[in-house]
This record gives sequence, C-alpha cells and structure tokens, in this order.
Amino acid sequence: MFVENHSGSLSRIAGLFSSRGYNITSLAVAETEDPSVSRMTIVVDGDEDVLEQVVKQLNRLIDVIKVIDFQNEPIIDRELTLIRINITKAYRHEIITLVNIFGGKIIAVTQTSITIELTGTSNTINDFIALVQPYGIKELVRTGKIAIAQAKH
Amino acid sequence: MFVENHSGSLSRIAGLFSSRGYNITSLAVAETEDPSVSRMTIVVDGDEDVLEQVVKQLNRLIDVIKVIDFQNEPIIDRELTLIRINITKAYRHEIITLVNIFGGKIIAVTQTSITIELTGTSNTINDFIALVQPYGIKELVRTGKIAIAQAKH
Repeated sequence: MFVENHSGSLSRIAGLFSSRGYNITSLAVAETEDPSVSRMTIVVDGDEDVLEQVVKQLNRLIDVIKVIDFQNEPIIDRELTLIRINITKAYRHEIITLVNIFGGKIIAVTQTSITIELTGTSNTINDFIALVQPYGIKELVRTGKIAIAQAKH
Repeated sequence: MFVENHSGSLSRIAGLFSSRGYNITSLAVAETEDPSVSRMTIVVDGDEDVLEQVVKQLNRLIDVIKVIDFQNEPIIDRELTLIRINITKAYRHEIITLVNIFGGKIIAVTQTSITIELTGTSNTINDFIALVQPYGIKELVRTGKIAIAQAKH
C-alpha cells in the first residue's frame, strides 16, 4: 500500500482492519523515494471475500494512494530478523555452523551470547528460530514481511 | 514495544501517537517466539518531553506489555530493502559493483532490470538509494528499522 505520510493515517488504516475483526500478522511501514509517501506491507490471514471488501474500503481512504493485492501474484518476499542467542564454548561451533548454512551474519559475540542478523523468507526465519530455540533466545526482533512483484521479462 | 496480539491494538497504539501530532517515521510489527505477543519497533521524531508522556500513556494501554525506549541506549539497528533498478548493458557492471560494495545480494536479473536485497543501517540504505536513483528505481520497499540493545559483557 502506498499512503500519504500524514499523522493519523496509520491509525485509520489499522482501524479498518480491526473493525472487520482482522488481525494483522505483520506490518512494515517506511518511507519511499518521496518523503511524503510511505509504503506499507501488511500480512493478514482471512476470508478472501471479506479481504476484497477491506481493499475496497482502503482505496476509499483519503490517505491511501494505491493498494496492491499480492495474493495471486508471483512475488519476491523477504524478512529481516536480529536474534541474540545464549552461547557457551561447548556449542558455539554448532551455532556458527547453523548461521552459515542459513546465510546469516554474526554481528556481535560476547562470552555468553551471539547476535545474528538473518534475511530470508518468513519460512526460512521461522526454521532458523526453531533450530536455535533449544539454545535459549535472549532477544528477538523481526521486521515482518516485505514484498515486491517478480520482474516481468 | 511488546504488545498482546489483539485485533485493534495496533490502531489504538497508532492513534495515541497521532493524537499527539506525532508522525511515525517507520514501524515494524511481527510475531515473537510467543505467537500471542507481537514486537513493534517504532521510529518517531519529536520533543523528548512529549515522547516521555507518550511512553507513559502507551504503558497504560491494556494491550501493551512493555515499552523499551532506545533513545539513550547503545543499540544495534538494521533495516531491509528490496529494490528493482533499471538496467542496460552499458551500466550493468557499475550497479553490480555498487551492490557488492554495500554487501547487497542480487536476487533477480532480467534484460531491463536488476532486483536487489540489501540489509544495513537506515543510513546505509539511504546512501545506496541515493547512489542508484540516477539509474531509475522501478520499485522500492523498505521494512523500517528494527533494533535490539547491544549485548552486555
């Protein structure tokens, strides 16, 4: 969604979803090349017909410039996570191996923790989290999904 | 911010900011290890005193579990972007060199475009966007910033 960067627009948009009982699974909002316009990526689970209605209502909001429905389109999607995991000498090597397999980046190491930056599809990130959970996650933050349409040839 | 994953909580939180005239620069919300809890990273510009009041009011919201103010704390912050840039044979090499310098990843190439995944601080991403803008950006999406506290030794 492309949205005019006004105070209050996010609240109105989020309100539209919640008034329909939709829970937003993830949401990422940031500026575009034009600082007056934000681009929002929203992930919602729900009935297709109701979602269609929500899209129509979103399009009627004055702040909303354009809504793109990626449901039935080939897309490229990614998510970013920062994770700090407990570490001891005994299994440090195991974790580093996992990070390398997933193409993650180690951004900080102390005697008791390792901090990792990982980008991938949401599924890849879910898999990585499941694998490191037994070691003990000290802190975790995710961006939520962003997506763009696949390039046309 | 840690928030109970209820329908309507995002709208209430966003509403609190906008009622104070705060524009949210970026916002990223996603699930945590506990699916009933979301973690939100919000970037706002504004007067420190008013922001302190907003934090107090956020803490009073029933859905809000915990607010962490990263303003005066050493943090690690990152953002993810997907960018599609116009490409011709003549300057393909230039763009690929830039992507490598920034540690980006080329995720799709066609005869007319190149799609890049880049993770870094928001400033790094701003710099990259400024450098590729002259080639023509076809599509751009950013996650907004996420952050965690630096590990204590």
